[in-house]
Amino acid sequence: MSNDSYRVLDRDSLPGYLAEIPEVTAVLGDCTDLEILEIGDGNLNFVYRVNNATDSTKSVIVKQAVPYLRMVGEEWPLSRDRMTYEIRALSLYNEVVPDLVPTIYHADEEMSTLVMQCLSDHIILRIGMIEGITYPDVAEHIGLFMAETLFTTSAWSMGSLERRELMDRFTMNAELCKLTEEFIFTFPYMDHESNYSNPATDAWAKENVHTDIDYKRDVLHFKDLFVSKTDALLHADLHSGSLMVNQQESYVIDMEFAYFGPFGFDVGKVISNFLLCCTSHYHRSGGAEYREWLLEQIPVIWNTFEARFLELWEAAGESAMMTNGFFSDTELADMRSAFMVNLLQESAGFAACSMARRTLGIAGVADIRDIEDLEIRSTLEIANLKLSKRLMAERNTLSTIDDMLALIRDYYSSPIL
Amino acid sequence: MSNDSYRVLDRDSLPGYLAEIPEVTAVLGDCTDLEILEIGDGNLNFVYRVNNATDSTKSVIVKQAVPYLRMVGEEWPLSRDRMTYEIRALSLYNEVVPDLVPTIYHADEEMSTLVMQCLSDHIILRIGMIEGITYPDVAEHIGLFMAETLFTTSAWSMGSLERRELMDRFTMNAELCKLTEEFIFTFPYMDHESNYSNPATDAWAKENVHTDIDYKRDVLHFKDLFVSKTDALLHADLHSGSLMVNQQESYVIDMEFAYFGPFGFDVGKVISNFLLCCTSHYHRSGGAEYREWLLEQIPVIWNTFEARFLELWEAAGESAMMTNGFFSDTELADMRSAFMVNLLQESAGFAACSMARRTLGIAGVADIRDIEDLEIRSTLEIANLKLSKRLMAERNTLSTIDDMLALIRDYYSSPIL
Repeated sequence: MSNDSYRVLDRDSLPGYLAEIPEVTAVLGDCTDLEILEIGDGNLNFVYRVNNATDSTKSVIVKQAVPYLRMVGEEWPLSRDRMTYEIRALSLYNEVVPDLVPTIYHADEEMSTLVMQCLSDHIILRIGMIEGITYPDVAEHIGLFMAETLFTTSAWSMGSLERRELMDRFTMNAELCKLTEEFIFTFPYMDHESNYSNPATDAWAKENVHTDIDYKRDVLHFKDLFVSKTDALLHADLHSGSLMVNQQESYVIDMEFAYFGPFGFDVGKVISNFLLCCTSHYHRSGGAEYREWLLEQIPVIWNTFEARFLELWEAAGESAMMTNGFFSDTELADMRSAFMVNLLQESAGFAACSMARRTLGIAGVADIRDIEDLEIRSTLEIANLKLSKRLMAERNTLSTIDDMLALIRDYYSSPIL
Repeated sequence: MSNDSYRVLDRDSLPGYLAEIPEVTAVLGDCTDLEILEIGDGNLNFVYRVNNATDSTKSVIVKQAVPYLRMVGEEWPLSRDRMTYEIRALSLYNEVVPDLVPTIYHADEEMSTLVMQCLSDHIILRIGMIEGITYPDVAEHIGLFMAETLFTTSAWSMGSLERRELMDRFTMNAELCKLTEEFIFTFPYMDHESNYSNPATDAWAKENVHTDIDYKRDVLHFKDLFVSKTDALLHADLHSGSLMVNQQESYVIDMEFAYFGPFGFDVGKVISNFLLCCTSHYHRSGGAEYREWLLEQIPVIWNTFEARFLELWEAAGESAMMTNGFFSDTELADMRSAFMVNLLQESAGFAACSMARRTLGIAGVADIRDIEDLEIRSTLEIANLKLSKRLMAERNTLSTIDDMLALIRDYYSSPIL
């Protein structure tokens, strides 16, 4: 994918680059006087907000991948091909869920650069949730996003040939898949130099995670699904930091991890982020009321997801998986019900993995890691690990989202702090 | 992949084509006087045996794909890219199991042509088995072939990045995957114009297959694995017609279906071919003694496969799936045992699908379809369907290959004809 026309953009070269793109000047207007703000707080890429200096409402976001891990520097090489996959995924999402992702103004695979809609009235959902802000529609938006993107790219929707053509465009997002394989499904469950450390948490994990063979086998089962199940095109990094929200709207961003993986991965990751935040609010200002709001979002996410997924399925014609006449209508309905139960259980397992990695692995969540008192933090970390273990151990007893919520409520009914 | 240099080879153009390839002239010697015999009895491609007219021991096989289904003609287009995947798979097999596949003399992706070792002292295993010939080592050879090829290309052997690079070379073998999805996992279980027809068999299938919801759901589960599980590079058409054998040697051929799929598919398909043949010998000359030989091969195949697979696994270093320190040695050994039980059960399910498709679908096996008396044939067809249903329904009760063999022996202990 790489070729010679690539160069790293900076404040000096950005205006000239943007001025050549009609779709961008149509938004920014005159490009001779631009304000450029580097806003990337992510680990991988450079992200700039660029606006017209005389009218700041005229603005765009420029995101460029560099051939190394930005948070570390050039000594950690990482192919900038990741931007190719983000471009491909965001382009597809603009077809499938245009209201839930930023509009693309310009996508440039050779320059590993994306110029897109600036979401200046929105904040990162994680930041809002840490502050205890409620969002009336975010759960529904998340459910819709997952239903539309997962169903549409699955073998229950696509024909066999077109599905393999789409898969072929994502197979080689290999480096980012490897990061997930290691940092979500491997290192957190063993002694590893990359892991986070907090003494009391470390001691608990040594006793209760590293030596829990059933739990680790289950983790490996989910790693196997991540590595070798190609149900649908996943966002594959769908946590509360990958959503920009306000009281009306929600936008999903940062899809550079996109690849064909198991249905439950996106769903489980989303759910785990509501749980991690819920645990954190035993210490944070939101308290019981906000914790209740967080928990109530979980069935809204699932029920919206499930209803829309089934609605799309019922409307779908023949596909790689389904040929008219194979099942009667009743048989089909029964099969779909069983399918959704299985997907719920799989999501619970992936949620469990996500909670453990955010607790023990290198990449924590600010909800927990920003708590300065290490003892309080550790208590909450251990609480998250215990919930992870329960979700994993009991996942196959869950038939409905109400079962899952009952398990979670039961867990939180014991003292946490 | 296609380009303008492609042309269909025939008797007139073959000598000139071969004379230009030093690796081929090294085998054939002088190319001015060649004997050319079209020997392809397959459905897809042209296959020629070419030998030196003055010394017939100097011979090669030339296999070329044409851009349509050979058995039907140009009105059924089929991309000749399939030869590209055969070339890629056979090249890999020449590295991994050189003694069990034909040597490649020349591989030409642009011409969709493969020139390879002529196996003139060998016959197709299916033909030998129909005639009641025993082969002392074939079961062991099959077990070794599957262990080496499946383990070596799996995420338990390869690193994450190199594995995705290899997968990327097979993702687009889409047309042949679609054939399998439809002709093995869909059409045989419903009314479909492509299906084979034999009145008594049709009537039984209508009552006992088309309406068996549990069985069809299980079939769909295995279709899902075929469509979206990428455990390893499969041969994906490993039946007794894809083996050339004599009393000493076995060669696996015809790997144009190769793609990344579930571990159990090759194993199940192989086992099913021994069962289909066993049933046929209730009518054929081999009788009870040959049936016993066929059944005894099944544990030999499995035990060889399992032992070699585990041996390779124990010798393997780190891989996409396994990092040193994640499991203790005991935990690892336990996990591997559970893995093999799961693979056995999965193989039983795929064997069940294969038996049903060979009975009800368009592509039968000569073992059964060559029986001229339609009533006897139907009795044996129904017997194969009943065994398919039992294997499917009881697969999860099987912990060892002896359990599977006991189930099969119990089944055959009731009168078949």
